[in-house]
Amino acid sequence: MRLSPYPGETMHWTITPPDSARLSSIIRRIDDKTKPPGALGQLEALARQMALVQGQEKIGVARPVLLIFAADHGIAVEGVSIAGSEVTRQMVLNFLAGGAAANCFCRTFDVRLEVVDAGLLEPLRPCPEGLVEQRVGAGSAHFARQPAMSEAQARQSLEWGAERARLHVRQGADLLIAGEMGIGNTSAAAAMMAALLGLPAGDCVGRGTGISDHQFARKRALIETALQRVGGNDPLTVLRELGGFEIGQMAGALLGAAECGVLAVVDGFIASVAALLATRLHPACRHYLVFAHQSDEQGHGRLLAALDARPLLHLGMRLGEGSGGVLAVPLLRAAASFYNDMATFASAGVTV
Amino acid sequence: MRLSPYPGETMHWTITPPDSARLSSIIRRIDDKTKPPGALGQLEALARQMALVQGQEKIGVARPVLLIFAADHGIAVEGVSIAGSEVTRQMVLNFLAGGAAANCFCRTFDVRLEVVDAGLLEPLRPCPEGLVEQRVGAGSAHFARQPAMSEAQARQSLEWGAERARLHVRQGADLLIAGEMGIGNTSAAAAMMAALLGLPAGDCVGRGTGISDHQFARKRALIETALQRVGGNDPLTVLRELGGFEIGQMAGALLGAAECGVLAVVDGFIASVAALLATRLHPACRHYLVFAHQSDEQGHGRLLAALDARPLLHLGMRLGEGSGGVLAVPLLRAAASFYNDMATFASAGVTV
Repeated sequence: MRLSPYPGETMHWTITPPDSARLSSIIRRIDDKTKPPGALGQLEALARQMALVQGQEKIGVARPVLLIFAADHGIAVEGVSIAGSEVTRQMVLNFLAGGAAANCFCRTFDVRLEVVDAGLLEPLRPCPEGLVEQRVGAGSAHFARQPAMSEAQARQSLEWGAERARLHVRQGADLLIAGEMGIGNTSAAAAMMAALLGLPAGDCVGRGTGISDHQFARKRALIETALQRVGGNDPLTVLRELGGFEIGQMAGALLGAAECGVLAVVDGFIASVAALLATRLHPACRHYLVFAHQSDEQGHGRLLAALDARPLLHLGMRLGEGSGGVLAVPLLRAAASFYNDMATFASAGVTV
Repeated sequence: MRLSPYPGETMHWTITPPDSARLSSIIRRIDDKTKPPGALGQLEALARQMALVQGQEKIGVARPVLLIFAADHGIAVEGVSIAGSEVTRQMVLNFLAGGAAANCFCRTFDVRLEVVDAGLLEPLRPCPEGLVEQRVGAGSAHFARQPAMSEAQARQSLEWGAERARLHVRQGADLLIAGEMGIGNTSAAAAMMAALLGLPAGDCVGRGTGISDHQFARKRALIETALQRVGGNDPLTVLRELGGFEIGQMAGALLGAAECGVLAVVDGFIASVAALLATRLHPACRHYLVFAHQSDEQGHGRLLAALDARPLLHLGMRLGEGSGGVLAVPLLRAAASFYNDMATFASAGVTV
């Protein structure tokens, strides 16, 4: 796509669904393997999706990339998180130094990690080596008081996220994982979920990384205030009114991956809201999404149901950073390995 | 241990629980990492267990071994499985040729695979390269009619399984995964579960790899018949009356790993029954067990509850072969990576 930078113009994403005519031969190939039908459970569905999307005799994940989009949120001044906005910046430096959980998991599973400043409160100066600057603004605005961003910024978020995904695919990436860091972003994500699905705030808001009862009540009240201002569920409007720059860029990255015909991995609550936004912008995007981890965040189950998604992992994590997405990479590789290399009943002489 | 080969003598396993005095420093180390407390969910509990058991500054899984114990079951003549006993033998050949799901997963995650003939109906002649022969008998007997094995065979199963585990640890293995292949063995496992936990057959019997309503009713009736004969829950008696040679050897392998102070991975329903048997033979064995996958087999949830186990994966698999256990290896490696290498709040300058 080329997003029009002019407010009011229609966005155009060029996403082609995978060729479903190949599905029956893919299913037959899986059913011929030396195992009872369906005995590999969700790995069979995963192999089916991978084979459909990759469209090749041998499927796989050789060059996965985790993109961590980081941004700040005006709502954070309300103390709706366990930490203040300075931690967004500190964690970006931690990612760049290789010290965060996402770094450890990426090293373990040979996943490339890239950190994107999608809109920290202040730019890091001098710009650290390895940091990609795609600053849509100096943090989004306080969404309970005013729109979180302008329409131009919402479009810019999506476009820059998509551009980053396309760049990595051009460089050989065969899997994109969307991760995030942004103090306050479970508030923005819960508000977006409520608006996109037409649900009350109480069904969507959760405790993030672990806030108190008082913070929880405040978070919910702020989201309710914002939802009174926002009418309807137009995705671009929802992003503009409630979103964060990193959520917009994640959605853009998922759409960009789908445009390139490459699988994209979605992990926790915030990434799933980005996925919901992306599928509202172009439903065919859904074919390319793999859901990695169901978090403990209240509302995530309902969100996944709306996306018709059954995640691969349920490890009780609530960290973000795309950490759950990286943990799913070995499962994608396992699915590919059985699809590619497992014997058939005929070849192995097994007579079930 | 040295199991006495003489019926009636007490078995003696030498298992030392990990030193729990180190637990508080392990927990402190995990809580100092740059993440909200508990945000890595089950991976934190896993790292804690690994650190306790391995007792070193750096933890890890560098040389994992999957042991697939294969044996036949007299009960299989009743048609309680989707396949006949010839498939046990065929699948052993498939493992040796590298064509099964377990082989694919082992190659993907760099896990050594060893196949053990624990008691096929007939030995493979000439003995194929790579097959370990620890034949306790030519298949176990029809447990609805008579004891599945003699007491000497039950002891031999445990002893040989333990010996194999010890051998691999001597050769450098730092993780043992217990897998199985044996047509009819979900019947034996369900019967053993019922006897060990004092439950009715109906709470324990399931559909294995996918049997019909008729086969299901037959399977349940056969188990009920056998349970009438078996009194009490003495573990050696339960193994003798209802067990399979591969289930006994798996339990022995778990006990042998625990004796060596090495972690052992338990995956599906049959492996979990072996784990229950092992913990009844020596409760301290439990400290060394990691539960990998909750299968769809009815009864598995209840069995896991009895073991106070929360598996890492829920992928709807029902294959056996230790396949779910191998899929957990990357999660153990991820837990080790964050425990070893993740930055602390102090080192990273993060001010949560």
